[in-house]
Amino acid sequence: MTRFKAQISYFGQNYFGFQIQNQSPTIQEVLEEKIFQITREKTRIVPSGRTDAGVHALKQFIHFDLKTETAIERITKNDFVYKMNSVLPDDISLTTCTPCDKSFHARKSAKEKTYSYWILEAKNPHPFFHHLSWQLAYDLDHQAIKEASDLIIGEHDFSSFCAADSMAETKVRHLLKIELQTKALSEFFNFPETQWLQINFTGKGFLKQMVRNLVGTFVDIGRHKIPSNKIRTILEARNRQLAGPTAPPQGLYLVDVSY
Amino acid sequence: MTRFKAQISYFGQNYFGFQIQNQSPTIQEVLEEKIFQITREKTRIVPSGRTDAGVHALKQFIHFDLKTETAIERITKNDFVYKMNSVLPDDISLTTCTPCDKSFHARKSAKEKTYSYWILEAKNPHPFFHHLSWQLAYDLDHQAIKEASDLIIGEHDFSSFCAADSMAETKVRHLLKIELQTKALSEFFNFPETQWLQINFTGKGFLKQMVRNLVGTFVDIGRHKIPSNKIRTILEARNRQLAGPTAPPQGLYLVDVSY
Repeated sequence: MTRFKAQISYFGQNYFGFQIQNQSPTIQEVLEEKIFQITREKTRIVPSGRTDAGVHALKQFIHFDLKTETAIERITKNDFVYKMNSVLPDDISLTTCTPCDKSFHARKSAKEKTYSYWILEAKNPHPFFHHLSWQLAYDLDHQAIKEASDLIIGEHDFSSFCAADSMAETKVRHLLKIELQTKALSEFFNFPETQWLQINFTGKGFLKQMVRNLVGTFVDIGRHKIPSNKIRTILEARNRQLAGPTAPPQGLYLVDVSY
Repeated sequence: MTRFKAQISYFGQNYFGFQIQNQSPTIQEVLEEKIFQITREKTRIVPSGRTDAGVHALKQFIHFDLKTETAIERITKNDFVYKMNSVLPDDISLTTCTPCDKSFHARKSAKEKTYSYWILEAKNPHPFFHHLSWQLAYDLDHQAIKEASDLIIGEHDFSSFCAADSMAETKVRHLLKIELQTKALSEFFNFPETQWLQINFTGKGFLKQMVRNLVGTFVDIGRHKIPSNKIRTILEARNRQLAGPTAPPQGLYLVDVSY
């Protein structure tokens, strides 16, 4: 048996999330089908973590095992990455795939993960980014969001920011870092009065919809619907109903996983 | 009668080009329908120039006339831009709309137009940009493309780079400027080994598919399939069959029109 570690990237718009479930297509389903198409061996892939429907990944890692010698050689002795990208749909891409130690586990070995949430502050909607960001027609108070984000760094019970249907045994997670970055869209796209706000979250692990629920609350804070320091009250109440709405999936990107 | 000048932007993937024709939807059709929905007066819009199916516009200009006082007031005395963006689909956006002199004509008054063609040089396909660029899995020789582009600046008969079904009376056009710009995609997107090449064309007017036919030829030059100086022979032959293939529409952007 040989274990493989692979790096992938995907644009989530057309998928019902990563994991195989009752709705189709999913990222997992497509990848497993294409790995079979090339290697002729059925396998199960394990990601660093699932992503929800509509959520993107710039850098996601998976592992999978192959048993037969011919299947293994189809990866190690051929240009497997090139072949996979020839058969994968345009919105899923394989970057690397190499044999790894049998003890490597894409989810359990992950030390830290970083998600980035992209908000487009634009007076008028930008026609190129409706599936790549959350577009808001008003300006946010970034300083207020920064203050709120500083108040929730660390290890806490994040029940207030966790999806109601989460199966997690504990809601305690360790948020290591939240960074705000602003970029003028005009650097790349000749479009007036638009600004990108990227909010980057680094942690050892995240609860279901935790980043999107934090962002929904940050946006309420950035609009002055609630004060920055109220985030501590919301956190300590361990009550999902006190926090802001869930930000839409198309703004969320898994951007890195460290091992 | 009041004439209006408006600035629009659109992502062309889902449209059969700008102009109303036998296939639907088109940008013109959607815009005219929404202007009617808000003003209750039927009008015809005139663009600075048509764009083909799948081609984008970051900055396109149109004009249209309204006769009735109530329709005119629905633009001048209300937040027409905001209202239009509320009813327009996500991939078309209105930026400005103001009354203008009756002598203004979106096409005839245009002094210069700039198109930008975006090529993504990426070892592996980038899942976020397949509808926003032409993705090439190999590196191009930019210097060779630059040399070729310098050889065709100026006023020439561009028959070799014009679509066969063009209705233009003369194939003479004046190309004022061609600029090559490279940008590392990692500035915005955390993705390895990708580079954007933008080729910007400024001219007084362009023939049908002229930019895409020039880009197809530039790519053949950048791959060393033909030498840079061969472009003069191709130009002088006035024979479309000698030039390279037509570059795909999704890489082409109308980026500016000056009046």
